Parts: sequence; C-alpha cells; structure tokens
Amino acid sequence: MPDIGALLWPRSVALIGASSDADGLRGRILQVMKGHPYAGAFYPVSRSQKEVMGLKAYASVADLPQPADLAVIIIPAKHVPEELERCGAAGVRSAIVLSSGFAEAAGDAGSSLQGEVRAIARRYGMAVMGPNSEGFANTAAALCPTFSPAAEASERPLLPVGPPRPQLAVIAQSGGIGFAFFDHGRAKELSFRYVVTTGNEACLETLDFADYILDEGKTDVLLLLLEDVKSPETFRRVAEKALRAGKPIIVSKIGQSDAGARAAASHTAALAGAPAAYRAMFERYGLIEGRDIGEMVDMAAGFLSFGERLPAGKRVGICTASGGGGGWMADACVAAGLEVPELDAETRRRVDVHLPSYGTSQNPVDATAQAVYKLGYAGLIDLVAPSPMIDAIIVVMTARSPVNIERQRADLERLAAETRKPILLWSYTLPAPRSVEILTSAGYPLFTSIPNCARTLRAMADYRAFRERFLRPIEVRSSPTSNKAAATKALAAAGPVLCEWDARAVLAHYNIGADGIGTLAESRAAAIAAARAIGKPVALKVQSPDILHKTEAGAVMLNLATPDEVAAAYDKLIASARRHAPKAHIRGVLVQPMAPAGREIILGVKRDPTFGPLLLVGLGGVHVEVLKDVALAPLPLGEIEARAMLARLKGAPLLEAHRGKRAADVDALIALMVRLGQFAADHTDTIAQIDLNPVIVHDAGQGLTVADALIVKVQRS
Amino acid sequence: MPDIGALLWPRSVALIGASSDADGLRGRILQVMKGHPYAGAFYPVSRSQKEVMGLKAYASVADLPQPADLAVIIIPAKHVPEELERCGAAGVRSAIVLSSGFAEAAGDAGSSLQGEVRAIARRYGMAVMGPNSEGFANTAAALCPTFSPAAEASERPLLPVGPPRPQLAVIAQSGGIGFAFFDHGRAKELSFRYVVTTGNEACLETLDFADYILDEGKTDVLLLLLEDVKSPETFRRVAEKALRAGKPIIVSKIGQSDAGARAAASHTAALAGAPAAYRAMFERYGLIEGRDIGEMVDMAAGFLSFGERLPAGKRVGICTASGGGGGWMADACVAAGLEVPELDAETRRRVDVHLPSYGTSQNPVDATAQAVYKLGYAGLIDLVAPSPMIDAIIVVMTARSPVNIERQRADLERLAAETRKPILLWSYTLPAPRSVEILTSAGYPLFTSIPNCARTLRAMADYRAFRERFLRPIEVRSSPTSNKAAATKALAAAGPVLCEWDARAVLAHYNIGADGIGTLAESRAAAIAAARAIGKPVALKVQSPDILHKTEAGAVMLNLATPDEVAAAYDKLIASARRHAPKAHIRGVLVQPMAPAGREIILGVKRDPTFGPLLLVGLGGVHVEVLKDVALAPLPLGEIEARAMLARLKGAPLLEAHRGKRAADVDALIALMVRLGQFAADHTDTIAQIDLNPVIVHDAGQGLTVADALIVKVQRS
Repeated sequence: MPDIGALLWPRSVALIGASSDADGLRGRILQVMKGHPYAGAFYPVSRSQKEVMGLKAYASVADLPQPADLAVIIIPAKHVPEELERCGAAGVRSAIVLSSGFAEAAGDAGSSLQGEVRAIARRYGMAVMGPNSEGFANTAAALCPTFSPAAEASERPLLPVGPPRPQLAVIAQSGGIGFAFFDHGRAKELSFRYVVTTGNEACLETLDFADYILDEGKTDVLLLLLEDVKSPETFRRVAEKALRAGKPIIVSKIGQSDAGARAAASHTAALAGAPAAYRAMFERYGLIEGRDIGEMVDMAAGFLSFGERLPAGKRVGICTASGGGGGWMADACVAAGLEVPELDAETRRRVDVHLPSYGTSQNPVDATAQAVYKLGYAGLIDLVAPSPMIDAIIVVMTARSPVNIERQRADLERLAAETRKPILLWSYTLPAPRSVEILTSAGYPLFTSIPNCARTLRAMADYRAFRERFLRPIEVRSSPTSNKAAATKALAAAGPVLCEWDARAVLAHYNIGADGIGTLAESRAAAIAAARAIGKPVALKVQSPDILHKTEAGAVMLNLATPDEVAAAYDKLIASARRHAPKAHIRGVLVQPMAPAGREIILGVKRDPTFGPLLLVGLGGVHVEVLKDVALAPLPLGEIEARAMLARLKGAPLLEAHRGKRAADVDALIALMVRLGQFAADHTDTIAQIDLNPVIVHDAGQGLTVADALIVKVQRS
Repeated sequence: MPDIGALLWPRSVALIGASSDADGLRGRILQVMKGHPYAGAFYPVSRSQKEVMGLKAYASVADLPQPADLAVIIIPAKHVPEELERCGAAGVRSAIVLSSGFAEAAGDAGSSLQGEVRAIARRYGMAVMGPNSEGFANTAAALCPTFSPAAEASERPLLPVGPPRPQLAVIAQSGGIGFAFFDHGRAKELSFRYVVTTGNEACLETLDFADYILDEGKTDVLLLLLEDVKSPETFRRVAEKALRAGKPIIVSKIGQSDAGARAAASHTAALAGAPAAYRAMFERYGLIEGRDIGEMVDMAAGFLSFGERLPAGKRVGICTASGGGGGWMADACVAAGLEVPELDAETRRRVDVHLPSYGTSQNPVDATAQAVYKLGYAGLIDLVAPSPMIDAIIVVMTARSPVNIERQRADLERLAAETRKPILLWSYTLPAPRSVEILTSAGYPLFTSIPNCARTLRAMADYRAFRERFLRPIEVRSSPTSNKAAATKALAAAGPVLCEWDARAVLAHYNIGADGIGTLAESRAAAIAAARAIGKPVALKVQSPDILHKTEAGAVMLNLATPDEVAAAYDKLIASARRHAPKAHIRGVLVQPMAPAGREIILGVKRDPTFGPLLLVGLGGVHVEVLKDVALAPLPLGEIEARAMLARLKGAPLLEAHRGKRAADVDALIALMVRLGQFAADHTDTIAQIDLNPVIVHDAGQGLTVADALIVKVQRS
C-alpha cells in the first residue's frame, strides 16, 4: 500500500499546471491553498510563467529545490501520464489528479489513460488520488489542495474556534458533494479533520483513506459517499476495524436506482453494484445509511457529541416548552422506532412541583414556557434525566435568540459534561449562528429537522446495541456434522447444474434436508415400490439437470395416495417433461413423502459480483415473488446474524403465533440458515447459486422440511 | 359564523393586560406590535398604568375613545371571562385570548372557564381566537398581535422586498410551531400573508380560518398544523373548496402516536383522533401530508412557484454539473416515486454538442462544470426542457456564491417566466442569503435537502392528477338496484347485532351478497334437505346475534359433502355453540354452498367518532391481521376512490396476475365496495360497524362471493 500519509500530510506541494488566473480552476487552486496558513512549501510548476501569484514558478517538477511530497496535477488528461511519470522520476511521493477525461469519459481513450496512471503509480509506489478528484482538505495542516469554493478562506475558519473537540472526516467519490458535507457541517460548527474526494479511484479508493484515518486514530466519525466498492476485502477489513474502534461510519451509496446507477457509471466509471448487496454489507458491519447531506451531518453531530455515552436503549424522554412541538417530536420518535414511555411516578412528582396546572410531566414533559424560563433547560433536564424509564433525552427548544442561550450557558455546559444519558436538542425556530456556536461547543448536537433528530437517536441506540453484539466472542460456526471433504468431492463430480436429487446428496454432508431426501425411481414399478415403502401420500418430481423450473414444465405432482395414482403420475410426468424439453437428460422421478403443513420459506445463496456469496431468505411464495420481501446477508453468518435477517423481513410477524396459529420453528430455520451459509462459504469458489424453495417450517419444536433444492455451479469459461 | 375579518383586519386593537416590562410576555406583545407600521390604533388597557410604552393607557376597555375591533387579552385565566364580557358589552368585535390555564390544564376549573369563554363569545357574536393562542401575524396590515419572537421587527421585514408574489398562510394550533413555519419560510424568502395560531380553539378552529382565507382569495398555499378537527363538516367543506380553487393544503397532524396524542391531549385538550381516519380524510381531499417544518415549507415553495404550471406527469429530467449530486438526486426521485427516463435521441443530440467527452446527456444530464459555466443553467435547461420524455426539471447546483447566480440572473428570470414545465433547484452547498433572494424572487423553489426536493415534485404531480380527477363530473353513485326504504325497514326491525342471515337479508336490498345467501335450517333434517338442494359441498354456520366470532366458538364447519356429514356437523355445531355461549339465542344453522377459490378480502365499515363511517378494505387474513395492510376512506365513495383505495394496499400486486395465477376480478370488488359504501352512507345514523369477512374474489370475469357478513347497529343510550 502506498503511503497515504505523504499525500495527506506533505511537507511540500508542487502544483502542476499552476496559473495566475483566479477565474479558472487552475488559478483557483493556488488561491484556495494560499488562503490558509499551511506551514509547508508551495511550488507552482508552469511552462510559461516565471512567477505565479507571487510565488516563484518552476518549468518542471524536476527543477524543484527538493522533491515535493505531493504533486497536484491539473493539466489536460492526455498529458497526465507523462507528467506523473516525471513526478515519479523526480522522487515525488504522492499525487492528486484533478483533471477529468479518464475512465468517466465516453470511448476507450480515457480508460486507457487511466490504466497508464495506475501503472505509473504502481511502478513508483506513489499514493495517487483521482483522477477526476476535487482534492482534499486537511484542517490540522491548514492544507486545501482543491478548487472547491467551500474550502476557500472565509469568515468561517477551517476549524471551529475554541478547544479541540471530537472530529469527523468525509470521504466521497464525488468532489462537489464531498465539500458540500463540509459546507453543511461547518455551518453547524462541527469540527472536520479531513475532507477527501477520491474521484475515479484509479489507485486509492474510499476505504483505503478510511483505513488510514482509522489507524491515525484522531477521527471519531466517518462520513462516506460511495459510488462503488472496488475491493470487498478492504471494505470488510476497514468496516470491522471501525466497528471495533467504535468509530461509526455513516454512508450513502449512489446508484440505488437505475437512473442513479446510470449517473454513477457515467461519472466515475464505476458500475454501481446491486443495492441489496450493498445494504446487506452495511447491515453486516453496522454502517449507518443516510439519505441526505443534512441528515448525515446531523447523525454525525449526534455521535460526535455522545459517541462515548450512547443510549442504552430506545426509550426517550422529551422535554419541551411547546406542547405542539413536543407532540410532533413524540410522533417522529415513534415513527423512527423509538419509545416515548410515560415517566415513573417519582420523576413526575419531582417535575410537577415546578409546573403550572397547564403543564404536564407524563412524557413529553410539557413544562410550559414559564417553568422553562424559571428552571432553565438544564434545570428541567436535571429533574427528568434520572428517570429509570428513559435512555436519552430530546429537548424541544427555540435557539432563535442567542441571548436566552447565552444566559444558560454555564448550566448547559455543566450538564453536557456530566450527563450519562445523551441529550439531543431540536430548535423549532432556526437557531442564530451564535446559538449554534454556544450549544455545539458545549457538547450538544443541535437539530433543525424533527425526523433527523429522531433518526439520529435511533441510529445511536442501534449502533451501541449492534456493536456490543458484534464484540462478543464469535460463536463457533463450523458444525460438527458437516463433512466438507465429502461435499467437495461430490460437487466436483457433479455437472454444472445439480437437480434436487444431486443437490440433496451434496447438502446432506452438511445435514441439510437429509431426512426428506426420498427415493429416485427410474421406472414406474420402482416409483410404486418407493411410494409403498413410504406408506403415506407422496410427491413425484422429475429429476433432470436440464429442467430447472419443474412446476412450469409440469414435472411435479403432489398428494398421490394409491399405487394407481403413482403409476399414472409417473407416466404423465415423464411425458410432460419430454414434451417440455425433448433433449433433457432425465435421471428419473423422485418419490418423497408429502411435507406436513407449515410456513413456506425461500432460502438461497446468490453470488454478488462484488461481495461474493450472499444468503437470501424470504417468506412464502407470494411474499417473495410479488412483494419482494427478502433479506440478504454476507457469509459466513452465525445464529445472531440469521435471527437479525429474519427480523428484517416485513412479514416477520407471520412467523410468530397469530390467529390461533402456533409460532413457527424459527430455531430450526436459523440452524438451517447457518448450515447453508457454512456450506456456501466452504465452497465459495464452486457455487454460483443455491435455491431451497420452498422450505416448509413447521410449528415450534416440529422442525422443518426442505421441499426442494437446486445448486448451480460457477461456470468456468 | 362570527366575523373573522374583524379579528384579522381590525382598525383598532385594545391590549388588555398591557405592561411596559418588555422582559415579560405582556410587555413583549406591545413591543412586537409597535415594531411594525400598522396603520390602526393601539389602546393599552391597564388598571395600574396611565401610559404604556409611550401610549396612553385606559383603565378599562369601556373607556376607549371608540370600541376596538380587536381585544388582545393576556391576564390570568380566571379573570378572562369577566374581561371578555366587558369587551362584548363595550362593542368589541373580536378577541384573542393568549392566556393559558383553560381546557389544557389539569382539573375541571380550566374547562369550565373555557366553557364560559365560548358562551360569552357566542352571546356577543364575537370572533374569538384561543384561549392558549399565540396570536397571529397579518403581514399586509403589518399587524402582529403576538409575543412570538419570530414576529419581532428585525433586519428581515415581514414581507420580502420586491414586487408581490404568490403567498402562503400558516394556521397552527401550536403557537410556537406556527411561528416556526414563518421563521423557516422567511429564511427562504417566501411570502407569508398570515400566520394564525388557534390554541385551544374554544370558538374558532383551524378550518374556520382556512375558510376565511380561501374566500378572501389572496393566498395560494395553506400550511396547517392540526391537533384535531372539531367539525368534520367544516373540514369537508373547506378541503373541497381549497381543492376546487386549486389552493393546496399541506398538513401535519400531531398525535399519530400514543405519546404524540398524550402531548396533544394535555396541550390543547383535543382528543387526538385516530391517525388512520385522518389519513383517509386527507387522501380523500388531496391534502398533502408533511412530516417536518422544513419539508412542509419546501413543499409550499414548490407550489408557490409553479402552482399554475404543475407537472403533467412524474417524469423528471435532472440537470447537473456534479455527477455524484445528479446520481444521488436520481436515487431520491425514484425513491419518491418519480421516474428518471433516458432522454430522447433528439434532445441528447442537442445537448451533446455542448458537452466534453466526460459529460453525459442520458439523464441525469451531467453537463460538467465546464459546460454549465459556458451555457449557464438557463442555457442548459433550454436544451433539455423541450424533451417529450420529461414533465419537470430538477437542477443540481451550487448557490453558495451569489456572484455566479447574479451573473445569470436575467437568463434565469426569463426562463422562470417562460417555462411551461416546473423547474426545481437543489443547491448541494448551503446557498448564500443573496442567492436565495435572487432565485426565489426569480420564481424558483430552492431546496437544500435532496428528499424534500424529490418529494415536493412528487406532491406537485400527484396534486395535479388528483385535482383533475376530483373536478370531473361526479359519477352517479346511487345504484338502481338498491332499495333504501326496504333496507331501512329491515334494519329498524333487527336487534342490535345482525348475524350473517339477518345482515344478508338487509344487504340484499343493495344487491350485496344476495346470490350466496343460503338457507337457514332450524333442524337437522332441514339442514340435510338444504344441502341436498344445493347439490355440492356446503358450509354450515350457527346463526346467533350473541356469537360474533363464529370460528372461535366452533360454530362453523366447511366442506360437508354427504347427508351424514351434514347431520353430524349440525349436531356438533349446535352443541359447540351452546357450550361456548350457554345463553346465546340460536336462530338456526345457515347452509351455504362452499365458495369457489379466490383471493380473500376483508371489507367493512367502521364508524370514526370524528368523521363518521369509513370504508375499510384489506387483503387476506394474515395481511389484515398480522401485517395491518388496510386502506380506509370516508363515504360516500365512487369507483375512482375505490380503485385508489386498492392501489394504496401494500399487497395490491397480489390482486394482479402473478405466478401463473390470473388477475382477480377487481371490477367486481370495486362495484361491491361502492355498493357497501352507498348502503353505509344511506344508513349512517343506524350503522356502527359492518364486516364482510371474508369476501372471496374470484378470477377476472368470475365475480366474487361474500362468504360472511355482520352488522352492528349504533347503540342508543
């Protein structure tokens, strides 16, 4: 891995393509950089100018007084490779390519140029950001090699004034949006350590920068805007590292829709991955998904303030001087999956002493403007916070006038420092900039959006719960009953498609569906004999690697009770299968006992091109096929993850007891999910797809029946 | 109806409880009022002061030089009735009661005081706002009788500078939140005509003010914050009036959750109505639901700018200089139910001429910063807007620097005036205040939130489609086959609960379930004879007004084929029913042919305490009972509304053809919904509840079977 430190913390910067024209991008960069008190040296490189914006210019990067740590390159795309080569030869350790016209452009020329950039970077071991990047900001170094107007020196400094506070970093493929996060977050007085925009990611990708920043250990929250993940291994490693360190990653993935993917594809030449696979990966590692710049910045604010004191549960106490505001916030909390329980009697007694008759302490605690004026917000919270009924507090307030906030400043600072439960503020009026400064520097996240406030608290509670679960010792995942070697051998011997009979034979080595395997009958008489041996109604299914969809092919008959019925069915099935697929290789007819009743589940494995095998689970035929109600998760997975997958299904309540029906045997289903996941993980290079459809899950304690199975192997070309 | 004009447009205002202490609420009001150039007279009324804030004060409202049009009352609650009485006697025409301590307070005293206020207002015909109101702002009159800091004179005038533009009004039960809408909206340079805060609504409610404002005709968009609706008739009348006038109502209802309702109940003494009933009413009249102050203000901005040019459909073209921003917006549009289609070849050719190789015209049109700089936003939109593939345009831009916007001002103004398709702007950076001024006064809605922008466009498209549908001549709703008189008579003769047999007899007069009515057998022999006459498998159901849940009582048996089976079932059912409810009056056993297969639907009517009878429809047993997938609508309803209800079900796709199944006979279901609605509307005073559960809807063209029926009559106490 090239040295990202040389890129983000250079002692000297060469600007290749420097210009004095501050109206153009090339001039703007130096102007932006010069606006901040960076301690290192700037070396403009220009073929035509001797001096650029008051700095001595050099004709070539080879002429610098010392090799620059970082080269910032903004020249036409076609000249970039030669210039990068020159940088490498001159001992430059890192580069940002701001130029456009690489893989994101139409035609092959750009892709080819990008390939050259990658090769040169690799050859010299240079850390290269871009191409098509918008550069970065390193606030601690006061270094902003970017033309983004958001990084220009202005009345708002790069860092908030006052003592250091927890910091966030933004890493975005999109330059404009990356710096827009900075713009939104600075208006909220948040402290950014880095803004990094990675562009086409020819060499370094978003997660590489996240990795560096985590290792550095000075950043508490990461905001990522992803168009794609290039290395799933890096993703897994970095996401897990962040989780272990307790540094939340708040992410948005562009390209969830076809139109969004079209934009992503055309912009950074990244094929946007399947949204469901990304979501499964985010869920697996506790990444927090956001949908808007403001929402993600708001979430970051919550974690920055109370990352060390996350709520122990989802129960929130709401303190308000506006009854309407309190009610609206309560609705939003419930909509976000939080609870707003009535407070306990002792807390209510404590609060009631201070309230007029038209206030109420039940929750929301509508203290009225009068009591809030007397007590102060801090005084009110001191009364409410000890309630054993709540894990966090939301204060509904108006921060429009800084005078009122200034007056309460000392109390609010004391409270923020001492509280053990997180306190989130929602100002229903737009807060004055001075109010934002006071409240944020005191340590509170201050919201102007109701749903953002509620969702942030929910994300904080979820993150804590998820992380505690994740950090527990990992359960033993390999099952003593599995026989990997035997399964490997059977898989190798099989053709590209394993029909039920063959699939079951393989899966049986992992104790999957072994007890319902049935008998393969190669003649009518054999079918009758098999049915007789079973001794109750049977199902008959044609077995052929060439017939994947048996129902459509008329290759299944159910509920056959008598030998005559079995004989007639056998003949009919063979005829029907031959009609449907005249050239199909028919292995025989599978004779199985009818499965007892239960909930229909689909269980499967599909191979995502980026992240590899994902386990899929869904409820019932119509639920999967019409309502698309499925959950996905990467492998391997344990019982906890399997249970979490089931909980994500909209139809999850259907597995519980309802309408006189007993609960389904969820434990058996979870055990099956774990075994199937183990099987797929053990044979990840061989298996393209598995379908167990349907799995019939019986009532609790009664187990389940795998009623069909199919395995498709990876095709080697 | 008292004269709201006297309240909102008084020529003189008496302030009862006036004080010079600007730190208290009583002093603040006069200070706020005096800060604006109101042309009328202020008369402070004070027992102790001769002069208040430089104005001559009067000892009593009776002493004023002329009767005031409006009295603003802020004195302890217990003194309010006597003072209001004095106002009435003195000829004051209207009043605002700002004092708290009425029905929102604990105990009976406050409610009793509120009753007195109501009685006095009625006696004198005074228009009374409140109690527990925060007053109002009338910007055209420069009158702000309120202590809200948001209405204080500040560097931001009540109205935007420049020529008049479309205006909105806010009406909120909550004072704090009502003025918070104003605060948010003014920061976006929106033009407010009124901010009205209604408090406890002892006399005038939110919809009364909406009615006045609609009649006045100078307001284009209404924002409502409701805790409850007190008069459903007013709601219906005003909502329909707004829709006919094309004045969208954007609404949020507080009290959707238990906790929210608790807050509403304690605050304005309004029992928060059932959320589902409110939603059904909003859907019926095309009210647009919002979830946040910022979101509702953003929606208002969209309608204010393009209310006369709403999008003809849901297809949006996205123009951007940021690929990441365009992709993200495309995702948000698709998530909001909009379409982002690829543009047609001709448009793409027109655009491509101007793009560098790394831009793209497909949609999002990623023109790159370079092309946008050359063409200007207006130039780019001129190229894209004519595309027949799109109904509206979203521009992804950065409005951070006003210089760039100023430079393009004339072109943008021209475009806003000329465009026939709405153009919405999303600035991914926070716009400079000057940018907001320029763009808003030019006629654009300017968003800083991605989802708000996408949802606003969706709401605009939906509103146009809904309104066009609503304004079509109303279809004839009464069915020629219904016999109201006969049904009325049968209902009157029935007891409080009509079991299936009795319910069917009544419903048959509306041609509901008439063909599956079956035979009521009062003996085993009669049951056998009835089954024989039917000639195929039958269902037997005990009929008793005392057994509502037949399945739980073991009072239903299905699929009985032979006389022996029927006889045994008859005996078993009677015994089981007697065991379940020994005192039940058993009318007999209903013998019906088994219904052919189909989709299970629940159809019913429930009586909402506020809005009266609502039709309910849901899909299948588990869908209703576990997933709570139901839709509600007020009565009467026609085919269009019935179809819209079905479309709102999450499980709606289950009615369509899928997985080899034919589509369900939706037309028959809709006809049944309309007939049942007609029946319930015709007998609205009699009927508390109707259940048709299940209705079995067969394949298209095959009709449906009403498989059970129950009517519960309203209980007169």
